[in-house]
Amino acid sequence: MDAVSNSADTALRARAARVVPGGMWGHLHAAKLPEGYPQFFARGEGAHLWDVDGRRFVDFMCSWGPNLLGHLHPEVEEAAERQRRMGDCLNGPAEVMVELAEQLVAMLPHAAWAMFQKNGTDATTTCLTIARAATGRRKVLVARGAYHGAVPWASPSLLGVTAEDRAHLLHYEFNDIDSLRAAAREAGDDLAGVIVSAFRHDLGRDQEMPTVAFAVAARELCDAAGAALMLDEVRANGRALSAVTGAEWLRDPAARIFVTGSFWCGAVPMAAALATLRVVQRDDVPARIERLGRMLRDGLAEGARRHGLGLRQTGPAQMPMVLFDDDPGARKGEVFCATALRHGVYFHPRHNMFLSAAHTEADIAAALEAAGHGFAAVAAT
Amino acid sequence: MDAVSNSADTALRARAARVVPGGMWGHLHAAKLPEGYPQFFARGEGAHLWDVDGRRFVDFMCSWGPNLLGHLHPEVEEAAERQRRMGDCLNGPAEVMVELAEQLVAMLPHAAWAMFQKNGTDATTTCLTIARAATGRRKVLVARGAYHGAVPWASPSLLGVTAEDRAHLLHYEFNDIDSLRAAAREAGDDLAGVIVSAFRHDLGRDQEMPTVAFAVAARELCDAAGAALMLDEVRANGRALSAVTGAEWLRDPAARIFVTGSFWCGAVPMAAALATLRVVQRDDVPARIERLGRMLRDGLAEGARRHGLGLRQTGPAQMPMVLFDDDPGARKGEVFCATALRHGVYFHPRHNMFLSAAHTEADIAAALEAAGHGFAAVAAT
Repeated sequence: MDAVSNSADTALRARAARVVPGGMWGHLHAAKLPEGYPQFFARGEGAHLWDVDGRRFVDFMCSWGPNLLGHLHPEVEEAAERQRRMGDCLNGPAEVMVELAEQLVAMLPHAAWAMFQKNGTDATTTCLTIARAATGRRKVLVARGAYHGAVPWASPSLLGVTAEDRAHLLHYEFNDIDSLRAAAREAGDDLAGVIVSAFRHDLGRDQEMPTVAFAVAARELCDAAGAALMLDEVRANGRALSAVTGAEWLRDPAARIFVTGSFWCGAVPMAAALATLRVVQRDDVPARIERLGRMLRDGLAEGARRHGLGLRQTGPAQMPMVLFDDDPGARKGEVFCATALRHGVYFHPRHNMFLSAAHTEADIAAALEAAGHGFAAVAAT
Repeated sequence: MDAVSNSADTALRARAARVVPGGMWGHLHAAKLPEGYPQFFARGEGAHLWDVDGRRFVDFMCSWGPNLLGHLHPEVEEAAERQRRMGDCLNGPAEVMVELAEQLVAMLPHAAWAMFQKNGTDATTTCLTIARAATGRRKVLVARGAYHGAVPWASPSLLGVTAEDRAHLLHYEFNDIDSLRAAAREAGDDLAGVIVSAFRHDLGRDQEMPTVAFAVAARELCDAAGAALMLDEVRANGRALSAVTGAEWLRDPAARIFVTGSFWCGAVPMAAALATLRVVQRDDVPARIERLGRMLRDGLAEGARRHGLGLRQTGPAQMPMVLFDDDPGARKGEVFCATALRHGVYFHPRHNMFLSAAHTEADIAAALEAAGHGFAAVAAT
């Protein structure tokens, strides 16, 4: 990495090191990324990011998931701006909250109702609380290695966490029906629910789509036990907003538990979410992203083959997970990503990535060219 | 309440009842307010709110605390808009995060560092995790009746909460040194910290400023035990942002725990917070709000006297808590507030209220006139 070209980032890191513990927190810490990755960003537009040194990148992280249409999407920004001029966080919600809840209930087959929060962690914690309130039971089954939040019951770290914070969690293996049933047997008549991600996307390992048999088994197990099946998913609108939607039998407990936040009625993110959902449906965004994701996947496979490298691409094409064979510690992945970054493309060596509706065929072509340099660098090591 | 003038709110409540459990959640539920209060708001500007039926109110809740300068403050909006055009939630923070952390460290005598979250609950939960990580201990002392968040360890409701969620909390009485020491003795060598609000502002009871002796005792007790003293406070900028600041000895554990959120790097609320702090210092906002708060307090005291009503106004004048003597269930408070609301002023019968820098002497005069009608109604019951 050219130290000079990275000087504004270096200077900001030094300032941050003085006033922010460790310089940054959680999943956003650039120390977990290969050399040369910026910690600080100056600008985002569509599928492109600029760091504070003016380097431009084609972005394949999309704010680590939630940014679905790209930065500064005109229709989303216009809807948000219209709401901002009226008001954001008033003494209660605005009409847009009802519209958004109605929209989610209309779009999601399982949903009879919706509630809104700020963080994904707010949503998962609310789900567990509702499941316990609905059943009067305590045990929740969680897939081993799954990420459902950054509070004591869910955090991937045990530092500062007590045993009691996780006293009522039992673990199963994703896609392993026997392990799910064994965990349910252990919970016995204290089973409140099962939490599961839409597909397996643990850090640093191949993604796994759920088998139909596993999905059916989880549904049947919960129905038989009168327990809640909770699906944790993250792709939204790039503004601070999360949502819990639920079936009819969970409505009353959801109304009776106490969950809230100072900014949970914020109307601007809700207006942005409504505009996002409108665009997503009108433009069939999932199909578009999947098509571009396949283009990227095919190109990466071809590039790896050309360099004689074993590459595993798993899970949905629109959320690429790219891992090299024989790569303990993701060293090859780091060389690959660091090289691609120098050629203007922001990949991640360990975490699943994301495409947005703002990506174009030209962006994919640029990504594949940068990836070509990355594969060459890996082959040369 | 005139049913016709409230028809848009009524219609929205009916729609919300279908798609949101209970129609609304948590502290924002209008069912907890006197008759006639709107659930839905259309607009906010300065110290004024408009409900969806076009009724205008002088607002004394300020988004339940966080809105310090009033809605749509031009300098705050301009700073936020400038940052929005650059980017909000990118793949990492923007420079403004460092500036805001530096500003907090410069302004707050105890602070060596800062971290940012979305909810107050994120901040308090982070504090407990840091305290436990720093000390390797588990027990946290909490004032009986205090509100520190809406997740299982802190929620005012026990529904959906397990005993283990609170296994390591011990309770003391605010301002009661003996009870604090007794709780600390019970924690023994497992004391991680003490959490306390800046003053006592529990729902439905007189506010209480901390005595100097209590503050000193809490500080000394924590220092002697090597435990963390955590102060929970809520007045910010009206955008989704919370902060944890801490002393030097807590920096390393704060860096090592895992806390994060998809939107915690959002740059727009940070730009708004920086602008807010600039205005707060330049215009000596605390002094202004306190002066207007005293004007309101004096006027309310005079009005109550005129009607022969016993009124208790406690805590800081800028966060008014107005309770009637001999008023179980706050029935008098409800009549008072419902009447004031019909005269265009939004008070709260049980919760401490808030003034903002946008309130003017004319707003206070309008509030006192509305309050006069409220006192007359109470006296007539």
